[in-house]
Amino acid sequence: MIYFDNAATSFFKPEQVKTAVSNAINKYTANPGRSGHELSIRTADIVFEVREKVKDFFNAKNYNVVFTKNCTEALNLAIFGTLKAGDHVITTCYEHNSILRPLEYLKTQGVEVSTLFVDVENLPSEIENHIKENTKMIITTACSNVTGDCPDLNAIGKIAKEHNILFLVDGAQSSGHILIDLENSNIDMYAFAGHKGLLAISGVGGLVIKNGIKLKPILFGGTGTESENLTQPTDIPEGLEAGTIPTIPIISLGAGIDFLSKNFLKIIKIEQNLTKYLINKAKKLKFLKIYSLDTAKNVFSFNVKDLDSSLVANVLNEQFKICVRAGLHCAPLVHKKLGTTIQGAVRVSLDFFNTYDEIDKLIYALTQIDKMS
Amino acid sequence: MIYFDNAATSFFKPEQVKTAVSNAINKYTANPGRSGHELSIRTADIVFEVREKVKDFFNAKNYNVVFTKNCTEALNLAIFGTLKAGDHVITTCYEHNSILRPLEYLKTQGVEVSTLFVDVENLPSEIENHIKENTKMIITTACSNVTGDCPDLNAIGKIAKEHNILFLVDGAQSSGHILIDLENSNIDMYAFAGHKGLLAISGVGGLVIKNGIKLKPILFGGTGTESENLTQPTDIPEGLEAGTIPTIPIISLGAGIDFLSKNFLKIIKIEQNLTKYLINKAKKLKFLKIYSLDTAKNVFSFNVKDLDSSLVANVLNEQFKICVRAGLHCAPLVHKKLGTTIQGAVRVSLDFFNTYDEIDKLIYALTQIDKMS
Repeated sequence: MIYFDNAATSFFKPEQVKTAVSNAINKYTANPGRSGHELSIRTADIVFEVREKVKDFFNAKNYNVVFTKNCTEALNLAIFGTLKAGDHVITTCYEHNSILRPLEYLKTQGVEVSTLFVDVENLPSEIENHIKENTKMIITTACSNVTGDCPDLNAIGKIAKEHNILFLVDGAQSSGHILIDLENSNIDMYAFAGHKGLLAISGVGGLVIKNGIKLKPILFGGTGTESENLTQPTDIPEGLEAGTIPTIPIISLGAGIDFLSKNFLKIIKIEQNLTKYLINKAKKLKFLKIYSLDTAKNVFSFNVKDLDSSLVANVLNEQFKICVRAGLHCAPLVHKKLGTTIQGAVRVSLDFFNTYDEIDKLIYALTQIDKMS
Repeated sequence: MIYFDNAATSFFKPEQVKTAVSNAINKYTANPGRSGHELSIRTADIVFEVREKVKDFFNAKNYNVVFTKNCTEALNLAIFGTLKAGDHVITTCYEHNSILRPLEYLKTQGVEVSTLFVDVENLPSEIENHIKENTKMIITTACSNVTGDCPDLNAIGKIAKEHNILFLVDGAQSSGHILIDLENSNIDMYAFAGHKGLLAISGVGGLVIKNGIKLKPILFGGTGTESENLTQPTDIPEGLEAGTIPTIPIISLGAGIDFLSKNFLKIIKIEQNLTKYLINKAKKLKFLKIYSLDTAKNVFSFNVKDLDSSLVANVLNEQFKICVRAGLHCAPLVHKKLGTTIQGAVRVSLDFFNTYDEIDKLIYALTQIDKMS
């Protein structure tokens, strides 16, 4: 089985992550931040360590980390926690439904949204052109989950800072695949998923929030703080983490980050070489319609002539044991831009566990599909 | 180390749960419900099986299960998903902040709340007395997380049904400890935590929802369905589970339920005998102020004379290696009723892994604390 669906979730987890989970289930199952006994404090300590690891990994010294169940909840927290009627938001056609759907709802509540349909390289200038007096927030992905194309975060962050506008970045696809530097890119809030490039088990994501930013909670409940207060506290992280946090997924995230941190530049290089290899090979197949730029990171999308993307994905799965994803990938507007709303696109998403040989097998399979069709 | 903090989270997990997690990290890390390939479908299949196990366990054939990150999110979904300005809700002083804080917020949005300060045995009649024309929902815990006292769910469910009012039950403490029968108790929505009595790892909870009930989503994002639709779908479960679901915590929940199901009546008997043994022993210690009824389930609260509950918990931890929880346990109103808002209460919460010998050691430790103070 060849696994090319790492943008949905990374299938192969490092041994360190597996070991961390096995150990945690014997040692760290008490509830952190609720009780004062030894087992609870031990768990709270390791959760604190993972928060620090997340901050280090994204160069976010002057930030806080709120753990959520997934990247979607983190984006919802950033968006609903900030925006109110009368605010204006600028976002892009590259975004996932985890941004588009909250914004669509907020449109019904008086929030104004500008969604830019431009090539990724033109985003900074177009964003600047759309800034108005009531622009409260700029939201962009760090890496399209459909095409692998990456906006220039430094350029956008500079614009946001100059205009005193909050800059929220969706790091679902970038985390663990691209060097992210929150301080230097002037990113105010950064949402990540644990189970993709960060190699954790599913059940954890997070929002990295610059110190000083206040957010309205979106979930209300026990925080282990101010228990007598019936109004939800808004301290970070406790007030934004109502209920029991996912300790073991968090610990697996810490192990995933440890694994990546040791050799991150090497890992990035391996992944970029694999992606380049894939793109170069694919470009020689004249029957492919390619949607990713040459500079795409880890994610590569295409169609085989006019064949439905799901059909191609099914044949790859059934006849060639190759796992890819087809359809719209929960990001409908980029398909509108690409003209692939009906056909969808076949998406190959790589991780450094993948090999050149696997890519060769995919290329071979595609030539066979071309012949069959 | 003696662990008596099972109401916060169960520390000891059965071998089946540990094995299920170890296997899952090698086999079930693909994303369920997103892609169409073999590894994704295999994961979707096992998640489906766990949904069915949850339904069986709570006798909820004509219900759906929405997985959440914890019981708090499930309660937020039930409450925010249903109530709107002008609605009236009846709830009790026994509730946790995961109910009280959402309701406190909704009071600012025009929802009317009656909170009943009565003994647990008087709840059904008092609830019926408070029903008004605009009463939309009755919310009660199945088991107080402070005292272990349990309202009569059958009686309340009957009243709710007769008056055509939604009945929401907080099963955080009851699940895995008490026989719960949603169909026969006329419960419309039941929220549970995986990591307590159901013996899963943290990171999963859920809401069991009677067929036909519609809820507004509280989180917006990718659902793997209707991807081209920017409005959040409301189909159950997909529309209410935006983003990647916590597959491995869900699988651990399935294993926990398997373990419990095999011998559930025996397990309940063991736990009830342990609780009775504890209560009988404790009642002989005249220096204890006891807050739980003789019929309390698994949870037992007290204070040592006028000593601060945190002080007692700390001494138990440091000198006797006994883990309990002190303070308000995120349920402030029951302390108002008990007169323990300042002192808090020491809570001992049992699981069937506990032993009579451990209880004897606790009783001995308490007599020593009495002598010291």
